[in-house]
Amino acid sequence: MAIKITGTGSYIPNVIEKNEDFYQHQFLNSDGSTINASNKVIVEKFKAITGIGERRYAKKTLNTSDIAFFAAEKAIENANINQEDIDYIIVAHNYGDVKHNTEQSDTVPSMASRVKHLLKIENPRCVAYDVLFGCPGWIEGVIQANAFIKSGIAKTCLVIGAETLSRVIDPHDRDSMIYSDGAGAVIVKNTDKEGGILAHETATFALDEAHFIFFGETNNPDINDKRRYIKMYGRKIYEFAITNVPKAMKSCLDKSGVDIMDLKKILIHQANEKMDEAIVKRFYKLYNMEMPEGIMPMTIGKLGNSSVATVPTLYDMILNDEMENQQINKGDVIIFASVGAGMNINAIIYKH
Amino acid sequence: MAIKITGTGSYIPNVIEKNEDFYQHQFLNSDGSTINASNKVIVEKFKAITGIGERRYAKKTLNTSDIAFFAAEKAIENANINQEDIDYIIVAHNYGDVKHNTEQSDTVPSMASRVKHLLKIENPRCVAYDVLFGCPGWIEGVIQANAFIKSGIAKTCLVIGAETLSRVIDPHDRDSMIYSDGAGAVIVKNTDKEGGILAHETATFALDEAHFIFFGETNNPDINDKRRYIKMYGRKIYEFAITNVPKAMKSCLDKSGVDIMDLKKILIHQANEKMDEAIVKRFYKLYNMEMPEGIMPMTIGKLGNSSVATVPTLYDMILNDEMENQQINKGDVIIFASVGAGMNINAIIYKH
Repeated sequence: MAIKITGTGSYIPNVIEKNEDFYQHQFLNSDGSTINASNKVIVEKFKAITGIGERRYAKKTLNTSDIAFFAAEKAIENANINQEDIDYIIVAHNYGDVKHNTEQSDTVPSMASRVKHLLKIENPRCVAYDVLFGCPGWIEGVIQANAFIKSGIAKTCLVIGAETLSRVIDPHDRDSMIYSDGAGAVIVKNTDKEGGILAHETATFALDEAHFIFFGETNNPDINDKRRYIKMYGRKIYEFAITNVPKAMKSCLDKSGVDIMDLKKILIHQANEKMDEAIVKRFYKLYNMEMPEGIMPMTIGKLGNSSVATVPTLYDMILNDEMENQQINKGDVIIFASVGAGMNINAIIYKH
Repeated sequence: MAIKITGTGSYIPNVIEKNEDFYQHQFLNSDGSTINASNKVIVEKFKAITGIGERRYAKKTLNTSDIAFFAAEKAIENANINQEDIDYIIVAHNYGDVKHNTEQSDTVPSMASRVKHLLKIENPRCVAYDVLFGCPGWIEGVIQANAFIKSGIAKTCLVIGAETLSRVIDPHDRDSMIYSDGAGAVIVKNTDKEGGILAHETATFALDEAHFIFFGETNNPDINDKRRYIKMYGRKIYEFAITNVPKAMKSCLDKSGVDIMDLKKILIHQANEKMDEAIVKRFYKLYNMEMPEGIMPMTIGKLGNSSVATVPTLYDMILNDEMENQQINKGDVIIFASVGAGMNINAIIYKH
C-alpha cells in the first residue's frame, strides 16, 4: 500500500498587485519612524531580497473559503473520484474568512464545513475540520491525512491550503508587500501503487520563537484604532529558518532512506527567495554538496507568499506544465518543506 | 494496548455572571423588533429551557490561550508525566484569543503554540496545532490523538478545549445568556492497560446545516458598525440535534460492542438542558428503554455553555469528586458526545 496524492488543484486569484502599486504607500519602521529612502528604493530593495515582483489578491467578493472551494473542485476532478467517497476535508489556514474592508476573522463554521457545503457533499461521514499551523499548515494537513489512513479511519482525504493575507496586512509596513492570496488542494488516498509518502517530519519551536510572527498594530503612530495585522520579526525568522529547516529536511530524507543524489525537486514554502535559497544551499552543504541547478522551482516572483497555499499551488503548476523547465516524472522523489508561524517546520519525502 | 486518558485538568473562570446581571440588557428579536415581555420574564423563560442560572467569564486580563494553559498544567500534573515527553499539543477552539474589549480574533501563532510557550516545553518534536470543529472540537482532538497513536507517530498527546465566548456575544441577543468561558484538558496516552477508547464516530452535516451557527451582526438596528457575533438558529439546531445525535451515539455504542445496560454515564456537551435531555431520552428510546436516572451529569446550571470546554471540564470535575452523586469507577463505560457548529456531531465510547 502507498499513500499517494492522486489529484491536485489550485486557484490563483486574478487581481495582480504589482510592486509599483506600492509606490504611493507611506512605509514606516515598526517604531513609527520614517524610512530614509524613497519608495522606489524601498521597493527595489524588497524585490532584490524576496524575489517578489508582483502578487495576487482575491477579488473583493471572494473569501478564503471560496478560493479553497475552487481549488478543491479542481483537485477532485483531477483525481477522478466521486466526492461522496471523501472521508476527510482538512483545510489549513490561519485567519479564516476576512471579508474585504472588515477586520474580523470569521471561522464559525469552519472553512472545511463551508467548502463541504459549497461542494454540495451529502455524506455526513465526510468529516470537515480546519487546522491552524502557520504557513506549514497544508503540509501538516497531508501528514494528518496520512495518519488517518494509516490508522484505518480514512481512505480518501481532501487537503486544502487557502489564505487571503491581503485582508490582514498593514499598508504602513514594508512586509505587507510579501503577502498574497491563494489556494491549493490535493486528494490524498491509499492506493495499491508504490511510492507516495515515504517519510515526514514536524517540529514546533515555541520556547523563544512562538511570537516571531504575530498579530500587531500598524506602524503608523497617527492611527489610534486597536486594529491588528500580520507582523513578523524578519531577521529573527531568517536566522531561525536557515538554521533549523535544513536540519529538519535532512532528518526527514535520512529517515526515508532515499539517497540525496536521487532527490529530484525541493518544493519549499515560498516565503522569501533569498531565504529559501540559503535554506536549500545549507541543506546540500549538510551532504557536502552544492545546490543543484533547477532543484528548487519558485513561484514567488509572480505569486508572492500566499502562506499555506504556496506548496500545493507550486506542485499543481508543475504537474500541469505551467512552470518553465520544471517537470516531476513518475518515480521522482521530491521534498515538500515549509516553515512559518508557530514557529513550525515540516517536511515530507514523497515519491511521485 | 489501550489508548487511555491518564490525566485531566480544567479551569473554571472566576467571574460569575448571574441571570440577574442580564436584567439591564435591551434584548431584541433577530429582526430588530421588540420582545413583548419584561427582561425578568425573558430570563426566567431562558432558565426554564436551558437550565442555566449563571455562567463563568474569564477575567479581562486572560485570553483563551491563558486558560487553555491553566487546564493543561493541571492535566500534565495529574497524569504525572514529564511534559517534555508530549508528542502533540492539540487545542480545540473556535475564535482564538479575543482580547477583552476588542473584536478581532488573534490566531497567529496558534493557541497550541502559545500553550507550549507558556508551559516552557523545549522539545521541538512536540507538535502544536489547533483544530476548529465547533463545540465538538475537543472530542475530535481526542479522536485525532487516538489516530496519531494508532498510526505510530505519537505516544502521548495533550488535548485541550478552551474558549472565551463572552468576547463574541451580542448583548442584544437573548442567546448571549447561553455562552460562557472555560477550558478543559486531558493527556491521551498509549498504555499497557485495558479499556480506553473503544469506538468513536464523527459526522459533519454541511449541506443544509453549515450555517445554523454563524457569525452575524447585532440584533440592534440602531448600531451600524460591521461587528459580528456568535449567532444561531436555535430551533433548527434543536430539531437537528435531537434527530441526529441519538443515532450517532447508538452507532458508536453498537460499534464498540458494549451493551447499553453496561453504559454508566453520558458526558454530553452542555448546550441546553432541555435539548440534552431530549437527545438522551431519544437515545435510550432507540433501545426501547427509559433514560436511567443520574446517567447524564450536568454542569450547565452553574457553568453555562463554554463550547469545546464543557465535556473535558465535566469529566475532570467528576473524577475530582466535585459533582454531587456522580462517580466514574474503574472499568465503567461512558460516552463522550457533542454537537455544534459545522454542524458537527461526534462521540467516543470510553472504558475508564
